[in-house]
Amino acid sequence: MNDVRKKAVVLVSGGLDSATVLAIAKAQGFDCYTLSFDYGQRHRSELAASDRVSDALGAREHKTVIIDLRTLGGSALTDDAIAVPETAVEGIPVTYVPARNTVFLSIALGWSEILGASDIFIGINAVDYSGYPDCRPAFINAFQTMANLATKVGVEGSPIRIHTPLIDLTKAEIIRKGIELGVDYSLTVSCYQATGEGHACGSCDSCRLRRQGFIEACVPDPTKYTH
Amino acid sequence: MNDVRKKAVVLVSGGLDSATVLAIAKAQGFDCYTLSFDYGQRHRSELAASDRVSDALGAREHKTVIIDLRTLGGSALTDDAIAVPETAVEGIPVTYVPARNTVFLSIALGWSEILGASDIFIGINAVDYSGYPDCRPAFINAFQTMANLATKVGVEGSPIRIHTPLIDLTKAEIIRKGIELGVDYSLTVSCYQATGEGHACGSCDSCRLRRQGFIEACVPDPTKYTH
Repeated sequence: MNDVRKKAVVLVSGGLDSATVLAIAKAQGFDCYTLSFDYGQRHRSELAASDRVSDALGAREHKTVIIDLRTLGGSALTDDAIAVPETAVEGIPVTYVPARNTVFLSIALGWSEILGASDIFIGINAVDYSGYPDCRPAFINAFQTMANLATKVGVEGSPIRIHTPLIDLTKAEIIRKGIELGVDYSLTVSCYQATGEGHACGSCDSCRLRRQGFIEACVPDPTKYTH
Repeated sequence: MNDVRKKAVVLVSGGLDSATVLAIAKAQGFDCYTLSFDYGQRHRSELAASDRVSDALGAREHKTVIIDLRTLGGSALTDDAIAVPETAVEGIPVTYVPARNTVFLSIALGWSEILGASDIFIGINAVDYSGYPDCRPAFINAFQTMANLATKVGVEGSPIRIHTPLIDLTKAEIIRKGIELGVDYSLTVSCYQATGEGHACGSCDSCRLRRQGFIEACVPDPTKYTH
């Protein structure tokens, strides 16, 4: 029997948000192809987490593309000379990787063209990351317009759609949605400086948002913190 | 004395077109930062050519970013199972790498943000490559709109401009322009299956266009062909 489900490329980082997005794409009936990036990030354990999450949520195929953004530097996540801050800061934080979502979505676009897929899912969120220019709806709309002009699929096939199901949700709402869809958050790693075993620092931006989210969602937090 | 020239990121592939673009950017007074990609392409000798061209035309800095597009496959340039055709074909050729210009421009956007540059030069051409969706002016305009929403530079600084000085030129016009600006085309490699020493096959799409261009420009062709 042929699988007649529509294919979707889902960007998976190993974190809480993208695991929830994958569960949402699956619940919407898509046959999911998950894509991760080994971009020289500090938090290497998120790569293993991406594998676990893709497996657990029944992705058809999971690929990790190597892209050495360390060559460019410019972010605390890809440049060892810039420390990850342990307190909240105003404005765009040093953990921002310049044009990262643009680069990731572009590669997802390439894979979707190869697969003949016209749906791409990404877990960006404008509530918690309002300081990042590439997390806003206006950016996504502009990317989608560009994507439809950039590819064979967009020009000749069905229009490409960039799905951002989390864009307006708070972290607590994301967690409640994921729990409803059966996501096992103990498989995920959000910390910017997680250990090799996936233990979280508990103090970086990403840990603070995650911890607060579980509290607000009234859901037990399965994260293993180092302190 | 401070260098007050404006910075530009220039995509350099080691080929004839991008060498000409670099000479044009330099002639326009930009301080040029050249960017190349090791994306698993067959024609590895273009990486050495990118170095030579960047040096010869006085680039301030040249970076090569590794991005393993072989993980995705889907093109004769990145998948050994797909042969490079030796005769002209109708429509989009198998040497098309899905979303390649989008991916390359996105990484250039990341570097421009790190450098504080708002000008990006790319040697795309709508005359010879009309079959590639990502070589059309409409795509470039949409990318530029997206880029200005995606980045700190675009949102807070001067608007990002994607320069495509070759877009309407024939290969012969490109060659004449480059000769006028002192480009040494013997440093460049265009062939999709060039040898390690940079010798060209003379029969792939890229070779045919290049060879014809020198004939039409009435300029001696410095390319070393294997046959």
